[in-house]
Amino acid sequence: MVSREESARRTDRALASDNYAGAHPEVLAAVAEANTGHVGAYGADPVTAEAVSTVRGHFGDGVEVAFVVNGTGANMVGLQLLVRPWDCVICADTAHIAVDECGAPERFLGVKLVDVTTPDGRLTPDDVRRACSGRLDEHQVQPRVVSIAQATELGTVYTPEEVSAIAATTHDLGLYLHMDGARLANAAASLGVGLAEASTACGVDVLSLGGTKNGAVLAEAVVVALPGGAEYLRFARKQAMQLVSKMRFVSAQFQALLADGLWLRNAGHANAMAARLHDAVRDVPGLTVSRPRQANAVFARVPGDAVAPLQAVTPFYEWDSATHEVRWMCSWDTTEEDIDTFAAAVREIVPRHARGGRALSPG
Amino acid sequence: MVSREESARRTDRALASDNYAGAHPEVLAAVAEANTGHVGAYGADPVTAEAVSTVRGHFGDGVEVAFVVNGTGANMVGLQLLVRPWDCVICADTAHIAVDECGAPERFLGVKLVDVTTPDGRLTPDDVRRACSGRLDEHQVQPRVVSIAQATELGTVYTPEEVSAIAATTHDLGLYLHMDGARLANAAASLGVGLAEASTACGVDVLSLGGTKNGAVLAEAVVVALPGGAEYLRFARKQAMQLVSKMRFVSAQFQALLADGLWLRNAGHANAMAARLHDAVRDVPGLTVSRPRQANAVFARVPGDAVAPLQAVTPFYEWDSATHEVRWMCSWDTTEEDIDTFAAAVREIVPRHARGGRALSPG
Amino acid sequence: MVSREESARRTDRALASDNYAGAHPEVLAAVAEANTGHVGAYGADPVTAEAVSTVRGHFGDGVEVAFVVNGTGANMVGLQLLVRPWDCVICADTAHIAVDECGAPERFLGVKLVDVTTPDGRLTPDDVRRACSGRLDEHQVQPRVVSIAQATELGTVYTPEEVSAIAATTHDLGLYLHMDGARLANAAASLGVGLAEASTACGVDVLSLGGTKNGAVLAEAVVVALPGGAEYLRFARKQAMQLVSKMRFVSAQFQALLADGLWLRNAGHANAMAARLHDAVRDVPGLTVSRPRQANAVFARVPGDAVAPLQAVTPFYEWDSATHEVRWMCSWDTTEEDIDTFAAAVREIVPRHARGGRALSPG
Amino acid sequence: MVSREESARRTDRALASDNYAGAHPEVLAAVAEANTGHVGAYGADPVTAEAVSTVRGHFGDGVEVAFVVNGTGANMVGLQLLVRPWDCVICADTAHIAVDECGAPERFLGVKLVDVTTPDGRLTPDDVRRACSGRLDEHQVQPRVVSIAQATELGTVYTPEEVSAIAATTHDLGLYLHMDGARLANAAASLGVGLAEASTACGVDVLSLGGTKNGAVLAEAVVVALPGGAEYLRFARKQAMQLVSKMRFVSAQFQALLADGLWLRNAGHANAMAARLHDAVRDVPGLTVSRPRQANAVFARVPGDAVAPLQAVTPFYEWDSATHEVRWMCSWDTTEEDIDTFAAAVREIVPRHARGGRALSPG
Repeated sequence: MVSREESARRTDRALASDNYAGAHPEVLAAVAEANTGHVGAYGADPVTAEAVSTVRGHFGDGVEVAFVVNGTGANMVGLQLLVRPWDCVICADTAHIAVDECGAPERFLGVKLVDVTTPDGRLTPDDVRRACSGRLDEHQVQPRVVSIAQATELGTVYTPEEVSAIAATTHDLGLYLHMDGARLANAAASLGVGLAEASTACGVDVLSLGGTKNGAVLAEAVVVALPGGAEYLRFARKQAMQLVSKMRFVSAQFQALLADGLWLRNAGHANAMAARLHDAVRDVPGLTVSRPRQANAVFARVPGDAVAPLQAVTPFYEWDSATHEVRWMCSWDTTEEDIDTFAAAVREIVPRHARGGRALSPG
Repeated sequence: MVSREESARRTDRALASDNYAGAHPEVLAAVAEANTGHVGAYGADPVTAEAVSTVRGHFGDGVEVAFVVNGTGANMVGLQLLVRPWDCVICADTAHIAVDECGAPERFLGVKLVDVTTPDGRLTPDDVRRACSGRLDEHQVQPRVVSIAQATELGTVYTPEEVSAIAATTHDLGLYLHMDGARLANAAASLGVGLAEASTACGVDVLSLGGTKNGAVLAEAVVVALPGGAEYLRFARKQAMQLVSKMRFVSAQFQALLADGLWLRNAGHANAMAARLHDAVRDVPGLTVSRPRQANAVFARVPGDAVAPLQAVTPFYEWDSATHEVRWMCSWDTTEEDIDTFAAAVREIVPRHARGGRALSPG
Repeated sequence: MVSREESARRTDRALASDNYAGAHPEVLAAVAEANTGHVGAYGADPVTAEAVSTVRGHFGDGVEVAFVVNGTGANMVGLQLLVRPWDCVICADTAHIAVDECGAPERFLGVKLVDVTTPDGRLTPDDVRRACSGRLDEHQVQPRVVSIAQATELGTVYTPEEVSAIAATTHDLGLYLHMDGARLANAAASLGVGLAEASTACGVDVLSLGGTKNGAVLAEAVVVALPGGAEYLRFARKQAMQLVSKMRFVSAQFQALLADGLWLRNAGHANAMAARLHDAVRDVPGLTVSRPRQANAVFARVPGDAVAPLQAVTPFYEWDSATHEVRWMCSWDTTEEDIDTFAAAVREIVPRHARGGRALSPG
Repeated sequence: MVSREESARRTDRALASDNYAGAHPEVLAAVAEANTGHVGAYGADPVTAEAVSTVRGHFGDGVEVAFVVNGTGANMVGLQLLVRPWDCVICADTAHIAVDECGAPERFLGVKLVDVTTPDGRLTPDDVRRACSGRLDEHQVQPRVVSIAQATELGTVYTPEEVSAIAATTHDLGLYLHMDGARLANAAASLGVGLAEASTACGVDVLSLGGTKNGAVLAEAVVVALPGGAEYLRFARKQAMQLVSKMRFVSAQFQALLADGLWLRNAGHANAMAARLHDAVRDVPGLTVSRPRQANAVFARVPGDAVAPLQAVTPFYEWDSATHEVRWMCSWDTTEEDIDTFAAAVREIVPRHARGGRALSPG
């Protein structure tokens, strides 16, 4: 039996989600440092001014920035700027907005999501064109926004060329391009480019910029690159319950992440840990890597019987209980030892439950 | 001319809002302490379990608790549990939900607020009865919830007897009682009772429990006392964009505030500073205290010409530009020196601009 | 006791609402006449084209027209063209949208109504200015539309000059002017002007044009005078569940009402019957005409004890049960005999219950 | 070139939609007959009472009935009774609610539709089970309602056994069963059973009962069979802008259709015309019947080049422009001559454009 301490220790090193990790010490230090007497509320403070300036340093002086509190909120505020009541948002059927936001898009925005099946979470220009090909009379919702995730929920990454291509098609069709960048840092680190190069510089109009999974306590942002697109940003944020009064404490987190490259160190490390795991297990008999390993996650199919024993070593999610596809997610604080311990367990446990593996067992 | 440093110094000691204050050091310490490796996300962590237990220590084992990120969010999540689409919420016309949430109730809940004019922000049982007295056929919205603020936006406090009376009327009419307790700590400290004694123990069904104004970084909670009323709490919170992934960092703040009486020390201090200010200025010629001073705010009418000079001493808000009613809001970190400095300025500046004051000036 | 036949006979001549009346025979004939084989659905039919042209004959070639099914629907579709999610609509607190649409504005539009108390249901430019005078930061809903009713729910009528003045103020403030014209025909007939002269020609941007109370079976329209304002009219109508498939049958009703002056004959008659009633009862002791009689309704306060006996003669609504204000509403089919019968009853019953009346009774 | 008169004549006999047809003369007569003086508005009239009773004669005394104005409205009102904000509705991806209501479900109900791909528009119990099989935590919308169409948008019909089976699964899962019965009459006629036998008697909880396509002017109904399910029906109808004031004129249409079997004569005739067309063209070379012909529509794939020439004979819709699937929809007033004329055109035109057909043409 697993003792309570053992259970806690295991959770402590989970591969369940980059949300299981804590905050990077530099982020926490920045929060503490922002705690100096009175400042204007709701973002009228010098910490926020500095952090906005820092974000602009990445995305260009022309962008508007609003800090918010979580990823669903960032997506709702950003999409709100783009949609009208009868519009629809085209996205992958694995998109966070489609499956992990408890219907907030339909409830708060009141618009329909038109979701497209993809092999790896990435939309293509053809997907967009097809989704716009119907008769678009008044009985139909009207295509207005294409929303892509960078990195995707399946751990894949669009190249800048791919984002540019989808942006070109989107704009040609008169639509806007939204990006859910909850893991933009991981995507950019994977591509070896800057945050803008993986997003707005390729034509993304409105971006949800993630901080939390990148080592923050709780900090996301909406970055509006569309000229004039931010006119109502402050209203949209307030109405979406995403405006916090002591804003400096959110802003300080972005300052910590983005001012001196902490975003890249954190994301690059998480990606490297995923790569280390991927390389250590890719050839294990009975295991099939099921999605290209590009950011900080490894997706693989393993024998059904192997899932529980592996989870007993290190907690993680079974992504699809029908196919026994699992997700191993690395974070800024995953250690090489974490990976090596788990990889060893995979190499030991998976083959034992694989069809061929059983054949090797002597009577 | 005021120098930049001087301007910053003045803001640093503002009476503008309890949102201008920073976080109490013990709260920040608790946040830092919660930063220990991986834990379950979205509230499945030991810090949250402990904080929920601590909240229950105040409100009773039967309540359900959900931590959220801001006051508007807390109100929306709490009200969501109570309303149906054709319902209305009865509130004072000064209520935060009525005037300071950018229409979130109408947009997110989709319900009408029926707002009642009051002398001091407090509803009475008669107000509730009158608001329910119309023909209630299908052409009308249906009364469903009474929402009161404790303390109110005008700095007044309901006695437990008053809350009980309004709860009795509300329940007799088949309605629910919601309380916006963004400043519940100040109300309870003012009354000399516990948090529950000023709210749920008097019959409040759903409570927005404020942490931010009480010294937190960013932490509010929904407390559901209505038996069975929390069945959908987790869905309502997620859909309202109020669920944060690294929940422990919000929970830890409530633990810091509520476990050992920090809430009371902070609120009691803020109230005492308001009382000190009130006592120091109440008799100043040309100044009229305009609302009973009961919590951490002083409302007063001053000569119009006195507003700007006073704001140059210490920033604050002119509450009503027509009547020159001003609001002086004290927070957990307001000092006696802050008060004494400002009170001296009031005593010097206000009489000079008062009608009678001018008469005294010799040619 | 009143027999069943008697009861039916009385309802048959009610003063309860112009909705109690049936359809004018010419309207029904037009519906029957439109029933010729197959035509395009959803308005793509020659009857609709002709009716739209007829409406344009009244309001100008530049207006866009959409036929809908009821007054709440017309208001929602029209307002939808003007509002953004964080906006508010300024209206009288007696407005149909404020009190008689079961919260459809809050639910469907998701916006707040800011309602203003008025003596007679009519907003003034000053009312509008005051409603826009607050700080309009992101915590507040943003004024966007002023909605007035012509005639008002209290039977009063704006002169063209008054509509022009409110339009000027509204437009100066950067807002739009919406008119609920469920009884526009009655207002225009009362003013002795055309339908446009009482509405769009004075600066109304979007109009709900009533047909039902004017003698139709079931027919309302949205008339958009704002240049470019109708871009999304067809989507707004469909999404608001106001698009009917066999549109010709709605369109034919407007053709019948508007092509040859039936609207004016019907409205003028209803107004004349109200005037006849008003003149016959205005001096009755114990009765006070409570609102200026301008369209097809008479509002009066009567002794509380007189209400039921009068309703036993002819059904009508007690508008305010606290003050015993009653509403006597005339319709296109109210007859002089109806009026004379009822007026005689008023003259007999009211004085008997008046305070002075009782004094006349000998012991 | 086709002359204007010729064009009108052709539309007059369209196979485009059962919405292109007019109203049955008996329905119009009933509307005229209801036009007798004043009656209570909003359904408080004897015609409505009688029509409700007639509907109950079909569906049982326990059902509640609300007459509404169009199919989208009926679906929204009915679904509104069943859903909570975080719920989803499971339906076929061809469902009217999914593709033909301009996003009204997402906008008005605020809920997500989970749409399932089907071969012929019919859901199966397995489809329902699969749609409910995911992890249903707070990040997901919650399955609540299964919505099926009878007949489906693809002209297919569920047998009573099939409806019962899907109802059993739906109820076992704790969900409700909604039926879009815009063409329930056609389904029942096809099955040779009563209206209830094809719907509520099999376990449907809430039904949209179509009148318009069955020969009405404009009349739909919501029939609530779920015990207690109609508690808020009147509010839901009003708020959904589906309540008409002169209700008797809608009610009279249902009375005409349902009291003496007109519904069956109309639907049976439309079905028979579709069957006649189906039998006349099913073996035409180059034509493939693409969906089982069960109600009043024939779906077929034809050579792309044949579509326009056929539409020049009789207007109809190309259902899928990629596959050249066409829909030929018969209505209560389609004549044998209409069918024979069009079938002759099909037999002549289609083979000429078929691949094999061309091969037969001599050089």
